[in-house]
Amino acid sequence: MTASRPFVLTPGEPAGIGPDLSLLMAREMQPQAVIAIASLELLKSRGDLLALDIQLLPVSPGAWPQKPAPAGSLYVWDTPLQAPAEPGRLEARNARYVLDTLTRAGQGCLAGDFAGMITAPVHKGVINEAGIAFSGHTEFLAELTHTEQVVMMLATRGLRVALVTTHLPLKDVAAAITAERLCRVTRILHADLVDKFGIAQPRILVCGLNPHAGEGGHLGREEIEIIEPALALLREEGIDLIGPLPADTLFTPKHLEHCDAVLAMYHDQGLPVLKYKGFGAAVNVTLGLPIVRTSVDHGTALDLAGTGRIDTGSLQVALETAYQMVGSRC
Amino acid sequence: MTASRPFVLTPGEPAGIGPDLSLLMAREMQPQAVIAIASLELLKSRGDLLALDIQLLPVSPGAWPQKPAPAGSLYVWDTPLQAPAEPGRLEARNARYVLDTLTRAGQGCLAGDFAGMITAPVHKGVINEAGIAFSGHTEFLAELTHTEQVVMMLATRGLRVALVTTHLPLKDVAAAITAERLCRVTRILHADLVDKFGIAQPRILVCGLNPHAGEGGHLGREEIEIIEPALALLREEGIDLIGPLPADTLFTPKHLEHCDAVLAMYHDQGLPVLKYKGFGAAVNVTLGLPIVRTSVDHGTALDLAGTGRIDTGSLQVALETAYQMVGSRC
Repeated sequence: MTASRPFVLTPGEPAGIGPDLSLLMAREMQPQAVIAIASLELLKSRGDLLALDIQLLPVSPGAWPQKPAPAGSLYVWDTPLQAPAEPGRLEARNARYVLDTLTRAGQGCLAGDFAGMITAPVHKGVINEAGIAFSGHTEFLAELTHTEQVVMMLATRGLRVALVTTHLPLKDVAAAITAERLCRVTRILHADLVDKFGIAQPRILVCGLNPHAGEGGHLGREEIEIIEPALALLREEGIDLIGPLPADTLFTPKHLEHCDAVLAMYHDQGLPVLKYKGFGAAVNVTLGLPIVRTSVDHGTALDLAGTGRIDTGSLQVALETAYQMVGSRC
Repeated sequence: MTASRPFVLTPGEPAGIGPDLSLLMAREMQPQAVIAIASLELLKSRGDLLALDIQLLPVSPGAWPQKPAPAGSLYVWDTPLQAPAEPGRLEARNARYVLDTLTRAGQGCLAGDFAGMITAPVHKGVINEAGIAFSGHTEFLAELTHTEQVVMMLATRGLRVALVTTHLPLKDVAAAITAERLCRVTRILHADLVDKFGIAQPRILVCGLNPHAGEGGHLGREEIEIIEPALALLREEGIDLIGPLPADTLFTPKHLEHCDAVLAMYHDQGLPVLKYKGFGAAVNVTLGLPIVRTSVDHGTALDLAGTGRIDTGSLQVALETAYQMVGSRC
């Protein structure tokens, strides 16, 4: 089924591999219309460098394409750079360009022009260097869409892992696990599994915070004092939760076969297994937004930009996941 | 090659699956002599319950066997129970029995009678209930052998993960990562990879403590202030270390292919991936002891004792690993 609205792809940092990925992706026909929001000039010069013969098809507001572009071509909503972009060379003057592409994508999704957005990596450091406070795509889109709480979920074939806390120093994690946060995050995860992934009765496995999920209080009391009461409350709301379980026994076939998502308490508890399992084919999904947004799970790889030695696996999964999320909503 | 000294196996908690595993293991001939240190009566009755026709061959000090027992038979150093043992029913009076078997095994290894020991699970709770302070096999053996620092390492085919901290509440982990501890643990890991695993120049991948290994200090400063200086010092001693690396990118083929072990900062950072990869075939190795000790990676599974519905995979790997460790040392 082809959605009537196009998807948008933001290639992100112009000195990184995002432009390369966008062009490589366009070699084959996508099942949906996808518009790259990027500098036409940048895509042209990167295509020349990679010796890729991709036909760039400019599009503009008011006349969005509905049908997929043919193989070997890419729709582009031209968004001008502020300075020339060279592979591998960060340029603070282009920070504004990067944010312009994200703003166009996010606002277009909010306005209903676009079905969803897929993001290639940005470089936080260079945006901050340009004097613009920026802590990541997710936070930027939360602000743009006036969303109070978003949830980071990574997915690969056969496994989804959502996080209660994300980019916190480890020493601050335990204090950040409150019943209130746990309830907010779990409700969003549950609602988006239903609404955006089309799972009628999602089952969620929940990790403990401590090793062995606290082992009855011997290795930490957060399970007893915070996590279990919060899960009890959420179960009363009809959410199907199993746990808290020890993280090192939860990620085994016996448990994973019977669940739709894992909720990990923090970054390095949940993501190493996911990235091990989904190496090169994992996608980052932002839950809780009023729009569909997926992202590749890797960085800008500045040293590989313009070389052609890159793997489009994660972008493919990011595209497929966005299509599925919109399809489930129809 | 057959070592001239036998190995010993402690079946551990008599109400759990340890006795069952020992009998199931004995169906096939082992490449080395293995003596179960357990109650002869217990093994006999568990064998009857499981309808396993294993011939029990009593052995005693001064006349240890050197050759493997034939298939279908098991050497047993009879160690009497304090009370009858029933599958699934914990009995505090047998706590002393469990510790007796461990003491016999550990002292025999120290005395050079045994080549190494392999442990099946014990139940910490029931030993403590009997009024004996006990926090685990590892701590018990450290005390028995007067070892100040031991290191917990889990291994499966193709991956070894050692831990800087083990059974600590998550909130206490960051403060426990000191340069001093990191140096002690890394030196033990390095020395045992050389001495007990026969790896001439081991390469060790080291995880950061924080997500993204702190991302240059933005997500925590322990990498900069503690971990990097400690690794620099260890490198000057000739230890081949890579890191600190983000845990969610370290556990990918690109990095793992070129290393002999991973050093994780805490339990749930390192063990979920290991147990995911090595499901049913992981072994727990205690490094730093003056003796060889390996263990299954699972618990007593009280509900499965006497049922026969258990998997000997982890015990097999625990035996194989002990044989290899002793073989490498010869």
